[in-house]
Formats: sequence, structure tokens, C-alpha cells
Amino acid sequence: MNHQVRLNSRPAGRPTADNFEIADGPMPAAREGEVLRRTIYLSLDPYMRGRMSDAASYAPSVNLGDVMCGHTVSEVVESRHPDFRAGDIVTGYDGWQQYAVSSGKDLRKLDPKTVPISTAIGVLGMPGMTAYVGLNDIGQPKPGETVVVSAASGAVGAVVGQLAKIKGCRAVGVAGSPAKCRYVVDELGFDACVNYKTDDLVPALRAACPGGIDIYFENVGGAVFAAVLRVINRGARIPLCGMISEYNATGNPSGPNLRPLLVQRALIKGFIVSDHPDRAPAFLQECVPLVMSGRLKYREDIVDGLDAAPKAFIGLLEGRNFGKLMVRVSPDPTRK
Amino acid sequence: MNHQVRLNSRPAGRPTADNFEIADGPMPAAREGEVLRRTIYLSLDPYMRGRMSDAASYAPSVNLGDVMCGHTVSEVVESRHPDFRAGDIVTGYDGWQQYAVSSGKDLRKLDPKTVPISTAIGVLGMPGMTAYVGLNDIGQPKPGETVVVSAASGAVGAVVGQLAKIKGCRAVGVAGSPAKCRYVVDELGFDACVNYKTDDLVPALRAACPGGIDIYFENVGGAVFAAVLRVINRGARIPLCGMISEYNATGNPSGPNLRPLLVQRALIKGFIVSDHPDRAPAFLQECVPLVMSGRLKYREDIVDGLDAAPKAFIGLLEGRNFGKLMVRVSPDPTRK
Repeated sequence: MNHQVRLNSRPAGRPTADNFEIADGPMPAAREGEVLRRTIYLSLDPYMRGRMSDAASYAPSVNLGDVMCGHTVSEVVESRHPDFRAGDIVTGYDGWQQYAVSSGKDLRKLDPKTVPISTAIGVLGMPGMTAYVGLNDIGQPKPGETVVVSAASGAVGAVVGQLAKIKGCRAVGVAGSPAKCRYVVDELGFDACVNYKTDDLVPALRAACPGGIDIYFENVGGAVFAAVLRVINRGARIPLCGMISEYNATGNPSGPNLRPLLVQRALIKGFIVSDHPDRAPAFLQECVPLVMSGRLKYREDIVDGLDAAPKAFIGLLEGRNFGKLMVRVSPDPTRK
Repeated sequence: MNHQVRLNSRPAGRPTADNFEIADGPMPAAREGEVLRRTIYLSLDPYMRGRMSDAASYAPSVNLGDVMCGHTVSEVVESRHPDFRAGDIVTGYDGWQQYAVSSGKDLRKLDPKTVPISTAIGVLGMPGMTAYVGLNDIGQPKPGETVVVSAASGAVGAVVGQLAKIKGCRAVGVAGSPAKCRYVVDELGFDACVNYKTDDLVPALRAACPGGIDIYFENVGGAVFAAVLRVINRGARIPLCGMISEYNATGNPSGPNLRPLLVQRALIKGFIVSDHPDRAPAFLQECVPLVMSGRLKYREDIVDGLDAAPKAFIGLLEGRNFGKLMVRVSPDPTRK
């Protein structure tokens, strides 16, 4: 049987366990030209909240009864495709299930000898590339500038700040606990980190950014966004990547006062990383060596077993994870 | 004596007559190398509300007791400068007063034979150039796209929509009365106009923009901005020029929900036209012939006498003007 998590109902506000159905589907089989694989790691990401909703968004919703979508790292179990063989480790978009089959066009082979395979859904996967594209293409950081990133200990934020430091910028995080703030500064090398749950945001941002804010990489929305706008510099750039603080909102929450954009001639630009597949080679060329050398650090928050996925995902939307959240669906054969 | 309007006190919320002092200063005299002129037209513009306040903005406040600032069209009364002679018509930044003197570096000579001199503070002045820079440099209109502009019958909005039509776009205005909406469509040639005071904004915008909104030239903020965001297309561009609906606010009003920026990969960029003097030649080269040929239309709302300026300005912030608001400080010698 193929163990799966399906979308059972659409959440009103915060998702609950009831919105998910844990079930067993038929075991898929590889036909000629197809590849069957077993999921090792499943990525849990904030954007999935949008897929649970039927509100218009940049990608279609998951249909009720369908398996929840998501990036995965898998092991090929059976291949009837010339480019793959049993035992290959691949990354794809197989969703919240134990097994998947496809023509293989959606798969990229991984080399377990270079970097841990789990990085393909984290620091070297969609979250890392999101950081790379938003920071570089919209933020356009210059040495000496100050870059602020919210959800700084998360999968995207951690990469934003570290890449900013590598570019010669001052990197300032915003995170939700003393432990996360310590991690961001002590382990990731950010210059400072503001605790949005306990700090008075505007004075804390001013203290952490004595030269003002040139780039704000926006992951959260809400009060943090409003406070940052009051500290931006002339010509500031704001890549708008996510607004996790609003994903569970049932109404249409108001936003920050935008007059600082006018006064400071600042820019906000929304982006979706999947629009930019052309940037993948540059991203991997720059970041794989940084991960191999240990200069680009990452932290994984791994929960075990598909059945744990719904609760872990609900916690992600409330900032309860610490590092890149993923589910170990089956044992990682490359880790002893 | 030099009749003047000075800043008497800073407004809390809506300006009142008390915030202005109407007074007579000493008559200025031209020293060697200087030019003395008499104001003919004084431009009244929304940005002046910011100059009355001591909140940080993109330009310094007017000091208490100082003459209010503003663009002007004037006649040279006495010149001790080789480039100017008595009777020349010039445009400058002489403020709310009858006479001014300076070295002339701040003046541009006008040719009354090409276009009416009042256009130098309107359709061919700062407001027109604001429309040109924001629409072209940030909006980047392409034929077939839909451009929405708020305050559409105003000095900036009227130019935005007409230039959009010339570029082959659909132009849709937002204005505050049936007469303004009729003017925008019947006289200026916009394709449609929404009345923000009486129409249900989102459905009215959807009806006026069947293909969605590609560019929104933002002059007003508030409810119009929030409604427009719900109708933007993928890749929309929003030049942020002004937020007149908030200029009299005493608190820090909240803004629109920004999630559509993310979903639609849209851009908002604030700009201040005075940052772009390099664009003046292109603006004038394109727009002077359009005004001369009657293809770029404009409407002036002229009040008589400096003493009428405070009340007219207070009305401007409430949309009580109809067309480019200006004060005739002294008779226009070029109009019979």
C-alpha cells in the first residue's frame, strides 16, 4: 500500500488535523518509461497553506481528496526509464506520500557524495533558491548596505542573511525566540537579530540598523513589515516573498502604511521562485560550494513519519519549527 | 510692499485658515546679477501639505513664519542679469508671494507664443512631468495594457490617462464626481471612469477593466488603492506618486492588504519627480507638441488673488478643485 496524506477539507483560518486524511492508496507501478520511487524526505513549506485554500493564488489549489503537494527527496525503487536506476537518489515534487511514479521529467538526480541529500529541499532547494533570487534579483545588495530579513532562522531567511554577509552587507534578522535569535547571530553570523515577540520593533530595528535599512526581505507581513517601513532608507528594495503571519487570516487584513515608500522612493516587488527556473544553474553554481565548504550553514527540523506531517505543518504556520522543516518519510539510506 | 502668505502654525489634521498668515513683507530689490519678478500664477499642489508638517519627508518643511513654497510663473520686473530683461516670462519656485528676487539660476524662460504660460506649472510643468516619469519609467506601458489612474481629472491624473491612450493602452480613471468622470471620458478620451464616492469600487473596477489592471498610477491611497490591488494582473506595475487621502491623517493609517503583490508578482515603486531632472528634455520634447496640437488637453481651476490661496489649498486636499489648481496672483499680460 501507498501511505498518503490527502486534503480532506479546506481550513477556515488555522488548519486542523481534520483538514487532512491519513490513508493508504494502491501501490503505484512503473510502466514502460516510468520511474517508481520511495519518498525519503518531504519538505513542509508555508506556501502549502495557499494550496489548501480555494482562493485564487499563483498556483492551483489541491483538490479535495487529492494527495497534498510538496517537494521530496526519494530513492528510485524501480526504473523502466533509461536515465534512472534503482537506488538513485532524486528530488522531485511527489507530495505527502510514500511512493510516486512518473515519466521522470520532473526528477533531478542527486549526488549523495557532494552534500547531504536533504539539502535538495532546503538550503540547496526551493527555499535556498528563493533567497538567492529575491535577494539578488530584486534586492540587488551592495557592500555596506543593511539587509533585514524576517523569519531569519527559517529555511529562506537563513540563506538570505548569510548570502547578504557574503556580499559585504550588514545582515539583521527578525525571529521569534531568544534561541532563534542566538542561532541567527552566533551560528549563522548575522550582525544582529530582533525578537519580534518581545522587542519594541521600531526602536529595536533602529538599534540593530544604525545606518537604516536598504533591503528588507519580506517573509511575514503584519507588524514586522509595518515597523520595517519606518526604518527604510532612500531607494530601499523590498523583495516580497511571503506573508506567513496572514496565511491563516479569515478576512482581508489591512497592511502597513505605505507612505514611507513614497518618501523614500522605495520599491516592493512580489516574486514567486518557480517563475525563475533560468536562475537555478547560477544558484547551484554559487551555493553548492558554499554548503560544501561549510560557509553557508543550515539547520534542519526533521519530524519522523508521514503521520506527523499535519501537526508539523500546522506548527510551521505558527513559527514552532526551528530551521528547515521536513518529514523523514522513510529512512535515509545515505545517512548512517 | 510684497504681499505674502506665510506658514503661521502647523496643521493637526486638516489645515485651517489659521495655519496661514497673510501679510506684507518688504519689497525686495534686485542687486547686481539678480532678477526681480512679479508672480502671475502660483501653483497649488498636494505635496505642499507635507511642507506644512514637521514630519520627516523627502524635502525640508517650511519653517514657521516663512513664505509658503510653490512653483510660479512670473514676469521679470527688473533684471540686473544679462540673460533676463524686464517683461520676460519665467517659471520658478517663488512661493506664495507677489514678488521674488534671485540670481536667476532657478528660472526658466518661457515663450508665450508657443503655449499659454500657465501650462509651465501644470500640464507642461511639475505635474505633467510627474505623470510622464511615473507612467513611462515605472509603469512602462505597452500597447493593449490597461492603465488605471486615481485623481484622474487632476493635474497629474489627466496627463497619465492621455499619455496612456497615446501609447495604445486602455485608460481608466477614478474620480470623485459625475462631472469629473464625464470630463475624463468625454473631454480627455479615457475609456471609462469610476466614481469612488458612489461606485462599489471592486465591481466597478472589474467592469471598467475587463482585462484586469496592468498599471495603476497611484495618487490617493486609501480605499481606492485597496480595491485596485484586488484587480491587478500578473506583473502589474504601480508607480506610487501620492497618497492624498492620507495627507490630513493625524495617526498612521493602515494600508491595503499586500498579498496581491505576491500572488501577481507585482511592483510598487515610490518616486519623486524632482529626482529626475534628466527626464525634463524628453518630457518637453514629447509633450509640448501634444499640447500645441490640442492632443494633450488640460483644464485649469484658477482662483484670483493670493488671499484666496489658503482656502483653495484646503479644498484641494478634499478634491474640491476641478483641474489644475492655481492662483492668479497678478494679471496675465499674455492673455487678453
